[in-house]
Amino acid sequence: MRFEVEKKDGNARAGILETSRSKIETPAYMPCATIGAVKGVRWSELEELDFRIVLMNSLHLYLRPGADVVRELGQIHAFSTWRRSILTDSGGYQFFSLKGLYDIDDEGVSFQSPYDGSRHRFTPESVVELQIGLGSDIIMPLDHCAPGDASRDVVVEAGERTLNWLFKAASRYRDSVRDSQALFGIIQGGTHIDLRQEYVNKSAELNLDGYALGGISVGEDRDEGDQIVHEITPLMPHDKPRYLMGVGLPGQILDGIESGIDLFDCVLPTRMARNGTLFTSRGRLNLRNSRFISEHEPLDIECSCATCRKYSRAYLSHLHKVGEPGVLGLLSLHNLAYYRKLVSEARMAIKDKNFTSWKKETIGRWGEGV
Amino acid sequence: MRFEVEKKDGNARAGILETSRSKIETPAYMPCATIGAVKGVRWSELEELDFRIVLMNSLHLYLRPGADVVRELGQIHAFSTWRRSILTDSGGYQFFSLKGLYDIDDEGVSFQSPYDGSRHRFTPESVVELQIGLGSDIIMPLDHCAPGDASRDVVVEAGERTLNWLFKAASRYRDSVRDSQALFGIIQGGTHIDLRQEYVNKSAELNLDGYALGGISVGEDRDEGDQIVHEITPLMPHDKPRYLMGVGLPGQILDGIESGIDLFDCVLPTRMARNGTLFTSRGRLNLRNSRFISEHEPLDIECSCATCRKYSRAYLSHLHKVGEPGVLGLLSLHNLAYYRKLVSEARMAIKDKNFTSWKKETIGRWGEGV
Repeated sequence: MRFEVEKKDGNARAGILETSRSKIETPAYMPCATIGAVKGVRWSELEELDFRIVLMNSLHLYLRPGADVVRELGQIHAFSTWRRSILTDSGGYQFFSLKGLYDIDDEGVSFQSPYDGSRHRFTPESVVELQIGLGSDIIMPLDHCAPGDASRDVVVEAGERTLNWLFKAASRYRDSVRDSQALFGIIQGGTHIDLRQEYVNKSAELNLDGYALGGISVGEDRDEGDQIVHEITPLMPHDKPRYLMGVGLPGQILDGIESGIDLFDCVLPTRMARNGTLFTSRGRLNLRNSRFISEHEPLDIECSCATCRKYSRAYLSHLHKVGEPGVLGLLSLHNLAYYRKLVSEARMAIKDKNFTSWKKETIGRWGEGV
Repeated sequence: MRFEVEKKDGNARAGILETSRSKIETPAYMPCATIGAVKGVRWSELEELDFRIVLMNSLHLYLRPGADVVRELGQIHAFSTWRRSILTDSGGYQFFSLKGLYDIDDEGVSFQSPYDGSRHRFTPESVVELQIGLGSDIIMPLDHCAPGDASRDVVVEAGERTLNWLFKAASRYRDSVRDSQALFGIIQGGTHIDLRQEYVNKSAELNLDGYALGGISVGEDRDEGDQIVHEITPLMPHDKPRYLMGVGLPGQILDGIESGIDLFDCVLPTRMARNGTLFTSRGRLNLRNSRFISEHEPLDIECSCATCRKYSRAYLSHLHKVGEPGVLGLLSLHNLAYYRKLVSEARMAIKDKNFTSWKKETIGRWGEGV
């Protein structure tokens, strides 16, 4: 994997990330294909939007269809047919959200499958092996994500464990990985600047291919989370891609870019689309509002996605109301196009040394209403 | 509308049906876009499969989004963006399946919306007006469909009423319709040959654009229904398209073609696909069978649809198991491709005067297993 920062504007960076499978212009947003597909969306539609990388989830794929199945079918690209880059998350965050179904200790996590009750164990080493077997382009290590309202003691325990596990993961990775796969580090530490700083510095010693901020938007005070991103991102290694995990709404993406984040993933654009909430250049639109049933215009007059090129708000609103399953994909496609355009315009603004005023103007237009 | 029988092989016919919007080679199968879309499938995917006509349902569109909405947005083609032909069913069959929620009398049907409890009334005349407003290419009249286990008296009552309503519909149609819309007749009569014959002869006097057999596959004995199609179809006007409503499985389609049917619609291929049952050249495949999770090959090695060109049984089986909504469309697409190919091959066989042996061979291969 290669990464180069082409241009900076303040802390914001325009770069190029290159895996053996695709060249990714950063800042980039990665659509969530958690279970091996972006819900309701065709791969060809993601290609048309020029996405070069998506996220999948190791834990989900481990449980269903199983790592052996994926490996025997030629690994994750052949299995899913997505030939561009894939980052696989480790499942650490999913354990955090499956309260009670797992037991965590210093060596790993024991858990029960919610599908058949079978018992399993993940260790920092086994999770690297799992992702080597899946064949993803970027491997994320097993981490321990403390809840947003955890005490400092709990945050320290989770953060130290995440750091220890990262050293174990890196060691296993160096023993066995092929050149084509990269390993990123994950930094925990909650909303404690000093802990975050410490973990950034210690994990940087490993000289990994990239570094991620985990444990943001996990229930902490929104301002405190924003503050961490704002203060910690500039301290992360400058010559490596920086990834803000699981964040966020368009405003958070722009804040992250401003602080120097290069990669984002978030289920919100697709999940909210399925629920009828669409992002537009003039703010959010709730398709369940009855006024849309008689509106000729597209979701966003300034959007050139396949959904906006073809369909009226009226037709989409009708299909959503009657529960037609295909519309979930059409709406997701639009929100993904919105995110794609947002980061692409941000990149241009950075290259033009114009990021701050572009950001202000963009956010200002969200208040104009749809 | 123009219709021409190009070739006959026994009673089977190869023809061309031409509306102002598209040229349809017959025999043809019409995908069901009941609520204004084929569930889970993109219009572009239906175009790629070269479908030239789809079915929508007047009653469904009347209830949601409402006829006024569709009309104000430029009628049904503009609203849905499907620019090829559309046949709209009247809703007569839907009343039959909404037992208890409607009251039928000699002048029409009173019913309650299942969505908001509001009360409505359909008459033979209002249903023609409704479809004129929707702007479909082929209008189906309001009919009364008796259940498959009804007594002869009930079948007579429903059949006579259907015939009377057809005369009323034809009269309203002649008063008000633009040239671009056609009106078909519907023939009821259950499994009684003499009644069916009588209604065929009487409705033929109206010299409509086409004629449909209704009330087949509505719970009657399967053999008796088949027998009606077999005996009655050849008695229907020779120079008009003949449409077998709501039927059926691939074998029933082939039987219908053999008897001289030109048009079919049926929800089975899409509904069964969503449920994981796929049609292939070597018989049915149930994707929920666990063996498919490790199979590299496409659903049907002989199918060239987008789903079979791209995806393995393993991947589709995984997506279906985890409930990914997009797979419903990918599977529907395959079954639609299967039906499209089936009627297209039947047409070629008819033109080659080879229908009987082609049919035998095709059905024989369904037993080979997948």
